[in-house]
Amino acid sequence: MAQNIDWAGDVFISHADVKKGMSVSSFVKELGKCGFQARKIAMAVKVLSDMVSDKECTKFLALAGTMVPGGMRKVICEFLREKFFDVVVSTGANLTHDLIEAFGEKHKFMDSEETDVELQVKGINRIYNVLLPNRGYVALENGLRKLFPKLPQKEMSSREFLYELGLKIRDKNSILKVAAEKKIPVFAPSLPDSVLGFQVWMYSQNHDLTVNTTIDQGEVLDIVFESEKTGALVVGGGVPKHYVAMAAQIADKPLKYAVQITLDRPEGGGVSGAKLEEAKSWRKVHPKAETVDLVCDATIALPLILAALKDRLR
Amino acid sequence: MAQNIDWAGDVFISHADVKKGMSVSSFVKELGKCGFQARKIAMAVKVLSDMVSDKECTKFLALAGTMVPGGMRKVICEFLREKFFDVVVSTGANLTHDLIEAFGEKHKFMDSEETDVELQVKGINRIYNVLLPNRGYVALENGLRKLFPKLPQKEMSSREFLYELGLKIRDKNSILKVAAEKKIPVFAPSLPDSVLGFQVWMYSQNHDLTVNTTIDQGEVLDIVFESEKTGALVVGGGVPKHYVAMAAQIADKPLKYAVQITLDRPEGGGVSGAKLEEAKSWRKVHPKAETVDLVCDATIALPLILAALKDRLR
Amino acid sequence: MAQNIDWAGDVFISHADVKKGMSVSSFVKELGKCGFQARKIAMAVKVLSDMVSDKECTKFLALAGTMVPGGMRKVICEFLREKFFDVVVSTGANLTHDLIEAFGEKHKFMDSEETDVELQVKGINRIYNVLLPNRGYVALENGLRKLFPKLPQKEMSSREFLYELGLKIRDKNSILKVAAEKKIPVFAPSLPDSVLGFQVWMYSQNHDLTVNTTIDQGEVLDIVFESEKTGALVVGGGVPKHYVAMAAQIADKPLKYAVQITLDRPEGGGVSGAKLEEAKSWRKVHPKAETVDLVCDATIALPLILAALKDRLR
Amino acid sequence: MAQNIDWAGDVFISHADVKKGMSVSSFVKELGKCGFQARKIAMAVKVLSDMVSDKECTKFLALAGTMVPGGMRKVICEFLREKFFDVVVSTGANLTHDLIEAFGEKHKFMDSEETDVELQVKGINRIYNVLLPNRGYVALENGLRKLFPKLPQKEMSSREFLYELGLKIRDKNSILKVAAEKKIPVFAPSLPDSVLGFQVWMYSQNHDLTVNTTIDQGEVLDIVFESEKTGALVVGGGVPKHYVAMAAQIADKPLKYAVQITLDRPEGGGVSGAKLEEAKSWRKVHPKAETVDLVCDATIALPLILAALKDRLR
Repeated sequence: MAQNIDWAGDVFISHADVKKGMSVSSFVKELGKCGFQARKIAMAVKVLSDMVSDKECTKFLALAGTMVPGGMRKVICEFLREKFFDVVVSTGANLTHDLIEAFGEKHKFMDSEETDVELQVKGINRIYNVLLPNRGYVALENGLRKLFPKLPQKEMSSREFLYELGLKIRDKNSILKVAAEKKIPVFAPSLPDSVLGFQVWMYSQNHDLTVNTTIDQGEVLDIVFESEKTGALVVGGGVPKHYVAMAAQIADKPLKYAVQITLDRPEGGGVSGAKLEEAKSWRKVHPKAETVDLVCDATIALPLILAALKDRLR
Repeated sequence: MAQNIDWAGDVFISHADVKKGMSVSSFVKELGKCGFQARKIAMAVKVLSDMVSDKECTKFLALAGTMVPGGMRKVICEFLREKFFDVVVSTGANLTHDLIEAFGEKHKFMDSEETDVELQVKGINRIYNVLLPNRGYVALENGLRKLFPKLPQKEMSSREFLYELGLKIRDKNSILKVAAEKKIPVFAPSLPDSVLGFQVWMYSQNHDLTVNTTIDQGEVLDIVFESEKTGALVVGGGVPKHYVAMAAQIADKPLKYAVQITLDRPEGGGVSGAKLEEAKSWRKVHPKAETVDLVCDATIALPLILAALKDRLR
Repeated sequence: MAQNIDWAGDVFISHADVKKGMSVSSFVKELGKCGFQARKIAMAVKVLSDMVSDKECTKFLALAGTMVPGGMRKVICEFLREKFFDVVVSTGANLTHDLIEAFGEKHKFMDSEETDVELQVKGINRIYNVLLPNRGYVALENGLRKLFPKLPQKEMSSREFLYELGLKIRDKNSILKVAAEKKIPVFAPSLPDSVLGFQVWMYSQNHDLTVNTTIDQGEVLDIVFESEKTGALVVGGGVPKHYVAMAAQIADKPLKYAVQITLDRPEGGGVSGAKLEEAKSWRKVHPKAETVDLVCDATIALPLILAALKDRLR
Repeated sequence: MAQNIDWAGDVFISHADVKKGMSVSSFVKELGKCGFQARKIAMAVKVLSDMVSDKECTKFLALAGTMVPGGMRKVICEFLREKFFDVVVSTGANLTHDLIEAFGEKHKFMDSEETDVELQVKGINRIYNVLLPNRGYVALENGLRKLFPKLPQKEMSSREFLYELGLKIRDKNSILKVAAEKKIPVFAPSLPDSVLGFQVWMYSQNHDLTVNTTIDQGEVLDIVFESEKTGALVVGGGVPKHYVAMAAQIADKPLKYAVQITLDRPEGGGVSGAKLEEAKSWRKVHPKAETVDLVCDATIALPLILAALKDRLR
């Protein structure tokens, strides 16, 4: 059955060779000798490495899901400290949980077997295998009530509000604080759909401070219009993915580099599971873009990628 | 190995018996004799039937995904015409595509094999196996530019804006038109993250009409606070799911009826795939709520549920 | 942005229109006006309808998963009674559970909240949301011990063994009985990996009756070699999918019609989630085959397909 | 809303801290400070580490999927060389591809954009993002035809056959060779459903060498009956998972340690996606077993686990 095809010069599967004591970046190089999703991890590092090295590229980090309860707070901070990204677009949830930790409360791994009703009676909220007691939200409310009066008492975009808020945070491991210090804008286009957004709204009932996410539209488009090129790491999908892609499309600066990490799938037509290839039809992703769709929980993939990028880029 | 357990009185799997020419509602009853997801379809009909029949319950329809390209426009309109729901919470995308069709353009099934780059060159955008030509967006822009001057020139919540817009639509199959006629409020808390939101923002640059989704917060909470009970059909997850659940939690009116339809999964910690049981820990869903998590593409499940509800309720 | 493409003559998304009291086959026609997976249901019916009508085609039904606990026993029997399929390839599990019911025991829907450890103490086994008490296995053992002596006491292929066994079953709703009566061969290439296979092995320790699945190889290849064309409905994937596809490949009779129903996904490289398109590279599926990959739980899809096929074909 | 619960002494989410140049085992320790699937990687290492250290435990490696094309050949060999496992249960596919490489052919990463029909014309077979030319199967056939005459010419279990075959392989990176050298039995209960099984059957048409997987039943049960305890790492599910679990159940030696790695999901009732908890109801997994269900592609998870185990155990 075999035909005499030219098989030479091709990229063979030479198999991951795992050594005792090897570094994570050597390890990721070994994943690059495999197929399936292992290969995609190595490819993602390659694309992101190219993106970070491209001085002309404005790099977006699109964050859906609940990365802080998932344990990704330091990883995200490190992405920002290293200046791997220029702009963050996030759900309100990631920022809400970042602030809860900034105000001294912690998330906990669920190692017991209570039912959700039993947890509720104890005042504990569950996020898959992670728990947060109600007092996390009390700390959030108390903390914000102290900070809000110190912020500009005016209508702001989510970007401006989150910057001003970030400046007031003391916890050096806070995503919002690191972003503010590094002057990395953070957009939260669906902020009203979060407890942080709700607290802002409550406060705004009898104060001049208020957030209007419509104002963000112009701000994010200005950034994209002024960019030579764009690129993105998309985590989880949802509004952050769509928001970055739409800005790239409107400004006709389709993403030249794009990596997507999600467990969602495409067959139901939703944006989170849609493959990046599809975004090329929309000119949200450039026809010649380097892209990688990685099917993996982000809490495994992000640390692997960070470790490899750190070794590779510095 | 067997023990003498009391197996009587239990609900046996008696198997779906499919007859020639049978009605969809009889068919769904047969699914109720099965296990796995077939059973869940029948259970979803049961819970939604109880919900719709409960006069004290405020019923939410939470719509993520892109249900209009998926062919669910008439199904959703029929849910509203039948008054099965009192409030809709939607992504901007569903409404954007509803308007594109209201302005005369159509979505098309992809039956060719072009690549996404080839589609882009032809000016066609892909959503999984559905296509939309760019001229759909031109029609949207033209249509909105004619209607915007007829709307109140002021700052509005997404709810007020969508109501005023719905009143101006002529297409009787438009979700927004049917909702407006039936006085069913439609909230789009992430409206800025959609082409409809972008068009509003463009227009607002030199007009007084503008949308501020922060204003929705008070409006949705008023509805929930004034409700005796709450219930929801959640399609796809995302912001609409979280928004309804958060309102129910804040107002301490946890959902007494909840059905969720999604292909997303829980293991990555995201809101869309999270099982409804988890929401009980947050008191977003009532400890004694009737709930069904259905793992199925909504384009199959929603029509089945509508057909069965229609026969069962009228 | 729009270009003047020729959009006419295309297959538009005209939306499912669900009427009170409508028949399932009319309903499936409405699904054909949608996108995403709804469309795929209608396409699957189209392909299977073409396949069943093709007198030159040998039709395979490949059954993985646990369709009997899932409530699909009557549906599968009806597929066979209607002669929609010529050959069945199944896991041992489907046949084991078919026999348990043939010997008078039943599966039950799980409507309680016991933990798996509590179920185990009660002697109840769980399959997702379906339960089976240990006494089901006692009934199986007792039933088989009565029938085995009546079967040919020799080494048989799984096909011959299952045929002889099917002839002895009295329950008219048994898949094995219907298949035997209709002279539809049933192959179980992984029979040793099932409780039915274990019971055969136990009996064979001191009797001449034994099953050797290696013998099936020649039998299944003979069927394919003698076929003009081949086609298959693949449920769940696994060994049955691979076995049918491999036979089609070896005999160079690639599937001209192929429909696959599964919730598995392709990114991990496994056979169950692999798209049918991939099988074209192997020449397991014909380059010009009509194929549909349907992402849906089979307990929803199979009854829908059966209902539509019945109306369409008779 | 907060209640005064005792939050102290709990296992907090302290976040992954990724350092430049860190080792993989330190990295996995950091994953253990997270939630979601990152945590599960660390937990899997913990459970497998306990299992490997337990001298009374017979350790099973259950391999479905196509791990060799995925690049896991060296990883699996290393698992065996390190004697982390006592028994392997595999699909025929893993062994087929192991032999193809042992006979000098290679798998290749797909970095082009051919369609599957184009690949077929070129004589190249696709497995997700990995390719294998037909000449791989020619090499397999030629290689086996040389070795078969050197094997015992008699009926064998798959275990005995694979052992004898492994002894004849020269490639030191062959899974079958390493297993044979280390005297680790390899069972392939669904061997007839593979090209290796087909080659055996072809040869057996006019030789005395033949494989009968029914014989394996007694051999695997003997191993389990003689075990003090059992444990398993389950990759992908399918027949290997069910076979190991059924043996443990029949011999009443339920798994005391169990780790499962798969992207399949439970809602369709299939064995691959079923959570390990479910197996407790069957007493396939011990009520007090240490278990971890990891949702991740195995090509990422297995190398991580191997690297961490190596550092932890030696």
